[in-house]
Parts: sequence; structure tokens; C-alpha cells
Amino acid sequence: MDSTIFAYIAGFLDGDGSIFFQLVKRKDYIYGYQIRCSIAFYQKTENRKILKWLKSKFGCGYIRHRKTGISDYTIVEPKEVLKILRIFKPYVILKKKHVDIGIRILEKLPFADNPGRFIKLCRLVDTYKNINYSKKRTNTSEIVRNYLSARNFNVPVETSS
Amino acid sequence: MDSTIFAYIAGFLDGDGSIFFQLVKRKDYIYGYQIRCSIAFYQKTENRKILKWLKSKFGCGYIRHRKTGISDYTIVEPKEVLKILRIFKPYVILKKKHVDIGIRILEKLPFADNPGRFIKLCRLVDTYKNINYSKKRTNTSEIVRNYLSARNFNVPVETSS
Repeated sequence: MDSTIFAYIAGFLDGDGSIFFQLVKRKDYIYGYQIRCSIAFYQKTENRKILKWLKSKFGCGYIRHRKTGISDYTIVEPKEVLKILRIFKPYVILKKKHVDIGIRILEKLPFADNPGRFIKLCRLVDTYKNINYSKKRTNTSEIVRNYLSARNFNVPVETSS
Repeated sequence: MDSTIFAYIAGFLDGDGSIFFQLVKRKDYIYGYQIRCSIAFYQKTENRKILKWLKSKFGCGYIRHRKTGISDYTIVEPKEVLKILRIFKPYVILKKKHVDIGIRILEKLPFADNPGRFIKLCRLVDTYKNINYSKKRTNTSEIVRNYLSARNFNVPVETSS
């Protein structure tokens, strides 16, 4: 892909896409929560061709057609999301914060092998609540901290760094 | 501007912008209707910085902040719209038809100096009804034709070309 295609897709993502990270309760996860990431593009189903074109460029993710007439193309695999965020970093304007914080989270995710490190990443995930103007978000780093404390994990004292 | 900036803006326009042409009733116009064009970008007012950035790149148009929390950056001057459509033509994907038809209309507009030519352009404007999925459009080339016929303009017989 040449740089104008990267730039085009970055513009498309800024205009009509979303980058989000959230904490999802998972019984089978050691710390009880998963850090879930996704990059998604939305379009009216009539325009699904552009979603297929995007998928052909990325070579990953999946397309869904909803009954509401809206389709989306979504990538959730952390390695793929990290790769894509790095590619778009130089071109994205509106979602620059989303990209920068997303890269920080995903680069550190493989090393979040103790509760303290995991909660630090959860705090970075919290920032998406504000930058995405998300009001419905219920799982926060504070909830993860309480969950881990209640299960006698060694949770460090809260710091703002 | 370098080509990645053009490509970025084309992607942004495809994702969240609009290109539209419409017929507007005008008492002071010789054929009773104006062919009005516009390119618009929409964003939550919180993100108005990107609209200002776009305006700085184009050097024309105006930004409005609505009470609904949505802002828009709009360009309506035909010469400016034509210039911008030509710049984005190589990069736009989703709105390729909007751009191509828009360029055809605006290139011919200065030469629409008889009712037949004007109605031909109005028919091109009609196509935006379908490509924009616009259901509310009331003024069509047929209405312009009837208006001109009723005023004894020499209106050519309808052809499909």
C-alpha cells in the first residue's frame, strides 16, 4: 500500500470509524477482566463495497451486516490492531489520542503479568471513556482493582502516575 | 498540500462528509431556480479543531456551530467547490459518483445559457437524489421544466440523453 492509501484510510477512520478499548468481565481470565480492543468502520449496507475494500487492504477482521441497514468492518485481534494503529499513527488527526494510547496499551499488554501492571493498563483503558464521550461504560480500573483486592491479589496502592 | 493530505481529507469526506447539489427556487433567477452545490464536513462541536484545520487548508467556506452540539464546515461557492472536487477526484472512493457528476455540472454551469441546457444540468442534479438516498427532495428537473413551459420559455422535448 502506498502512503496516500494509508492517509485516505486514516481520514476515513477519523470521519466515520472508531477505535475503542474496554474492560470485559471474563470468568476464565486470571485477573477476571479482559482488555478488549477494536477498530471499526461503519457504513450503510448499500456501501458495503468500501468495507470489503478495507478488509482486502488489511487482510484481517470481519464484516457484519446488521438488520438496521448498517454494516461494520471490525478488527479485534490485539496484534492486528497494534499493527494497524502503528501504520496510521502518522496520518490520523482527530483520533490521534486514541491511536497513541492504544499503542501504549497494546505494547505493554504482553508484559502485564502482575496485578499492578494490569491495573495500570486498565487505567489507560479508562481514558477512552472520555475521549469517546462514552457514558455507558461500567467497567473501570477501579472495579478491576476492587475485584482483585477481594480475591487477595497483591494490589499496589493507587498512584496517579 | 502534499498528496497524503489530499488523500486524508478525501477519506474524511468519504467517511463523514457530504457533497450535494440541489435545485432551489429563486424569484430573481432567469430560469426561476438556482443549482446550488455544497461540500460539507460535520463534527461534534468538541472536535471543531479539525474543521478549522480543514478550513485553513481550503482557504474558503465557513464554519457553523449548531445548538445540537454539531458543527459543520461548508463550502458553497461554485468555483471553489469545482476546484476542490477536482483536487479530490483521484482519491475519493465512496463518493466518486458525487465528485464526477459534480464536476460535470459545475464545468457546464457557465454555459447553461438557454432553457434546454439548464434543464439538462437539472437532470444531472436529480441524480443526487438517489446517490444521497435523499427522500425529501421536492424540486426536480421536471418541476423546473414545468415552470419554464408555463412561462413560455422554449423548452426542448424530453430526451433521455
